[in-house]
Amino acid sequence: MARRRPTLLITMGDPAGIGPEIVVRALAHRGLNRAATLVPVGDPDVLGRAARRARVPLSVVPVLPEAFETGAAPAARGRAVPAIASTTGGWGSFEPGRPSQASGRAAARAIEVAAGLVLRGRADALITAPISKTALRAAGYPYPGHTEFLGALAGAPDTHMLFVGARYRILLATVHVPLRRVADVISVASVTRTLEIAALALRNFGWGAKKAVAVLGVNPHAGEDGLFGDEEIRILAPAMAAARERGIRVEGPFPADTFFARHRRRSDLGVIVAMYHDQGLIPAKMDGIGGAANVTLGLPFVRSSVDHGTAFDRAWKLGARRPDPAGLITAARVGLDLARRGRRLEWAWP
Amino acid sequence: MARRRPTLLITMGDPAGIGPEIVVRALAHRGLNRAATLVPVGDPDVLGRAARRARVPLSVVPVLPEAFETGAAPAARGRAVPAIASTTGGWGSFEPGRPSQASGRAAARAIEVAAGLVLRGRADALITAPISKTALRAAGYPYPGHTEFLGALAGAPDTHMLFVGARYRILLATVHVPLRRVADVISVASVTRTLEIAALALRNFGWGAKKAVAVLGVNPHAGEDGLFGDEEIRILAPAMAAARERGIRVEGPFPADTFFARHRRRSDLGVIVAMYHDQGLIPAKMDGIGGAANVTLGLPFVRSSVDHGTAFDRAWKLGARRPDPAGLITAARVGLDLARRGRRLEWAWP
Repeated sequence: MARRRPTLLITMGDPAGIGPEIVVRALAHRGLNRAATLVPVGDPDVLGRAARRARVPLSVVPVLPEAFETGAAPAARGRAVPAIASTTGGWGSFEPGRPSQASGRAAARAIEVAAGLVLRGRADALITAPISKTALRAAGYPYPGHTEFLGALAGAPDTHMLFVGARYRILLATVHVPLRRVADVISVASVTRTLEIAALALRNFGWGAKKAVAVLGVNPHAGEDGLFGDEEIRILAPAMAAARERGIRVEGPFPADTFFARHRRRSDLGVIVAMYHDQGLIPAKMDGIGGAANVTLGLPFVRSSVDHGTAFDRAWKLGARRPDPAGLITAARVGLDLARRGRRLEWAWP
Repeated sequence: MARRRPTLLITMGDPAGIGPEIVVRALAHRGLNRAATLVPVGDPDVLGRAARRARVPLSVVPVLPEAFETGAAPAARGRAVPAIASTTGGWGSFEPGRPSQASGRAAARAIEVAAGLVLRGRADALITAPISKTALRAAGYPYPGHTEFLGALAGAPDTHMLFVGARYRILLATVHVPLRRVADVISVASVTRTLEIAALALRNFGWGAKKAVAVLGVNPHAGEDGLFGDEEIRILAPAMAAARERGIRVEGPFPADTFFARHRRRSDLGVIVAMYHDQGLIPAKMDGIGGAANVTLGLPFVRSSVDHGTAFDRAWKLGARRPDPAGLITAARVGLDLARRGRRLEWAWP
């Protein structure tokens, strides 16, 4: 069966961080280029400099978003790679390694332009390089991260963060919530919805609608019958009962500490639902940076992201610790896979 | 240098759980027996039945605690293994697989007797099999776990839980605390004390007094400059400053999710301080059950424990999923190592 070659938009991330360098290195990745059309979105001057800095033999050809949208933009030819110019402030408007209002604005504009294009069906997936929340905030974008920002842009505020790694898929019930507020932020309704999202992801992406959705407890030992906290009884149990009524195969709540050792060999595990950021992301990232991609569920399009930050301390420097594009390449691979698997993404419970 | 052969006391754990079975299997472990004298503490009838159930060729010889203490007890000879009889209710007083007041009492008595002996210098380390907090509670022992129970018995209530694995040593700043209370339970004083304990462990056990003590943040991204919680600023920063004044080489606070991938190859990492149960125990246990031992710091003696629970569902059953003694063997190995390394344990900051 001949398949249409998917187009992946890749935003540059915060231009003062390692984003542009890892984007140009990912653009040169042979396997990805064979499978997909990779189109960077950002400041063409910054991307061009990043290519020279990273010694990637490509030359950036600026393309206006409108030209890309109408199909008037040139295709990649040889080393010439069209880049969608979401801003044109150029290299001089940022200080390498320092987040600023200008770097936050440029990062935000790349996201806005790319999200608009993919929303209007001009690309099959959005792949994002790391941004700085501090810079974003300085630029007047009040979002704690990409996920919430994209939710607002797409008019789909009910977004959820899923980490897709080699061994596990881990969905977060809460994300950028201070630890002291986690137990108050979750509710029967919110956890029920998270379980629905897990089940919908299994369907949307053809991962196996019958696979298990495993729930981790909030408290040590999943509360141990209420001895160490009662959220498992008050919140998780009724939410899981509601999910079962919907026909979702849900299991738990499991003590989070022993879960991964005990269930590592299961082939019928669909999605693991973690209650808060570090509970889900410590296991997701144990295999090393680049081991997992951050996928946003709830949007009308596929979005996949690196699982690391801007690394300002290493950006735009020569030397031994050159920024590693492994995380972005994993994100692009996962995004490509999901773009092929998911036809129409349906996030409303039928 | 000829070294005295250390004596390890091994409690049977909750007799209705898998404790007795894994204890007898550990007693038969050749490497451990070569290096140490292993003495089980529990109900001799239960241990004898466990040996038959586990098909371990040893016969249990009951010894009164007083006889052991005065040296009047027989030594192990061939397959005859002396067991310190902390209770003598026998097999009939418990229901296999069901925690009860009787099982909790027997488990507690084994701990009391064993702790008394090791406190009075009659053994070099205490190794403990899993107990049930529910059963302990039913028997009138109000402790959430071994650690607190042993602290009370030793008159050393300032105990701390350290996980010693192949790759990391992870110390918990809080243990059996409901998630919603963690941020309120930690204080500048308590975290400072935890950092002292980490540094004292590095000294007591000869792990390298100059090695780093790495602190994980409480909140997602270690709070990201206060965006996602302020405990890093209000509590961790002053506690770390106080530790530095004491000459402790402390680093952090690090975002917990990326810490393990980023620091996995460091050889100068002494102890990692996690702020709460699952933050420390998810990474400690990722390598599988039996990958780490739970060591209690702050006691005047060495105590090491399995990193898993009673597994009532699998206790005393025949069949494929026989209880695996790997965790208890790891605990005994670590306890033996610490008993050799630690001469006098000093937990007061000099």
